[in-house]
Amino acid sequence: MSSKPTLHTSLSPALLHLYDLSNSVVVIIDVFRATSTISSALYNGAKCVIPVDSVPKAIEISRNIDGIAAGERDGQIAEGLAHGNSPLEYNREFIGGRTLVLTTTNGTRLLHMALERGADTIVSGSFPNLSAVCEFLLAQNKNVVLGCAGWKDRFNLEDTLFAGAVITRIKKHFEIHCDSSLMAEAMYNKHKNNLMGFATKLTHYHRLVERFGLIDDIKFCLTEDGANVLPVYREGRLVVETVK
Amino acid sequence: MSSKPTLHTSLSPALLHLYDLSNSVVVIIDVFRATSTISSALYNGAKCVIPVDSVPKAIEISRNIDGIAAGERDGQIAEGLAHGNSPLEYNREFIGGRTLVLTTTNGTRLLHMALERGADTIVSGSFPNLSAVCEFLLAQNKNVVLGCAGWKDRFNLEDTLFAGAVITRIKKHFEIHCDSSLMAEAMYNKHKNNLMGFATKLTHYHRLVERFGLIDDIKFCLTEDGANVLPVYREGRLVVETVK
Repeated sequence: MSSKPTLHTSLSPALLHLYDLSNSVVVIIDVFRATSTISSALYNGAKCVIPVDSVPKAIEISRNIDGIAAGERDGQIAEGLAHGNSPLEYNREFIGGRTLVLTTTNGTRLLHMALERGADTIVSGSFPNLSAVCEFLLAQNKNVVLGCAGWKDRFNLEDTLFAGAVITRIKKHFEIHCDSSLMAEAMYNKHKNNLMGFATKLTHYHRLVERFGLIDDIKFCLTEDGANVLPVYREGRLVVETVK
Repeated sequence: MSSKPTLHTSLSPALLHLYDLSNSVVVIIDVFRATSTISSALYNGAKCVIPVDSVPKAIEISRNIDGIAAGERDGQIAEGLAHGNSPLEYNREFIGGRTLVLTTTNGTRLLHMALERGADTIVSGSFPNLSAVCEFLLAQNKNVVLGCAGWKDRFNLEDTLFAGAVITRIKKHFEIHCDSSLMAEAMYNKHKNNLMGFATKLTHYHRLVERFGLIDDIKFCLTEDGANVLPVYREGRLVVETVK
């Protein structure tokens, strides 16, 4: 009889309903680029990040609190906004001490889904904060659901690779009977020594690099622990917490 | 400019709606065990296989046509039926010249979903008929959607491995921008020389072998071209067609 908590990987928001979130820590994963941007902004001193599901809401909330409204739709800065979803945009000079109000195609949407489905705790995960996420999951000793944001409900490999990175580090402490997790771990271990090289084969890479030239974004998003903070969702905001 | 048809892989019935089926050949994949059983029955001379979505319907239809009602729920012979979803049950002596009316948890359900979503052509794919499926897809020169049945909408690796086997054989002739396909191909190529060894790690293996002792079923289901016919769905029935 095992007393380890369980770990599952949800490969798409359209599969999230298959998992019991009510007793789980849910890790929201949107490697290109929402959760990498959240790590970046908080690492660089943002007071908090407020994830919202629409551009008008981002504008309204940011106006009320003197925050920065930002977001993307289909990979580009959303119409009506001055700031997008690039982690490199949120350096210390710009974001330090301020609040980022962020809306994105996949990541912030998935976060709201997890919230609606009664997730016990929600954290934001990306390669830049891989270690912080793993430490937190180990410290909690609760069930875990790794939630990949995908692209408009389609499976993508970059989110899966991050799930695999987490699993590789913490699997000994969890009970894992989940083919998605087994696959994620295998894909990560196959490519971990050259994530940038593998990235050129991904659908999303073509969208971001060939159409928009965002190669530096990709590099940041695939570098482990470049912005190693733990964003936890508390009362409508993602705030940095220290792992105890 | 490319004039190759496209190929996508749908990793779960819950993701099938993301793909345009109306101009596509859809391959229904339920390796453990529906599509392997369909290959087996037709290879061994069954007149046809009628996939239905409920046990009462299986009983009613089979009575009207003097067919064999069969099916499983949760891996076991469905209540009220005398025959299950084991490919080994359908040898030539038993099934030759007869009609199999089959209902299963995942595979036949996915077939009906593809039908409702207006699939151009539907075929049944499994390792036992891998070559026949590949020849058919190459001969059609149409878009392809490889539809994995999964387990109650969850991703599973055995269906993904079969998708990867198909992709490995026919990819040169298709335009593939699909992370699911890229992953499926990688997982298949990693494990193709020892599918049985890898199978012991899969969620479904535990269900079938440790609970029900179906190791011989698993072996049949993972052996390429052991029942190499092409089941095509025509007017309510899966019938064998010869690839032209």
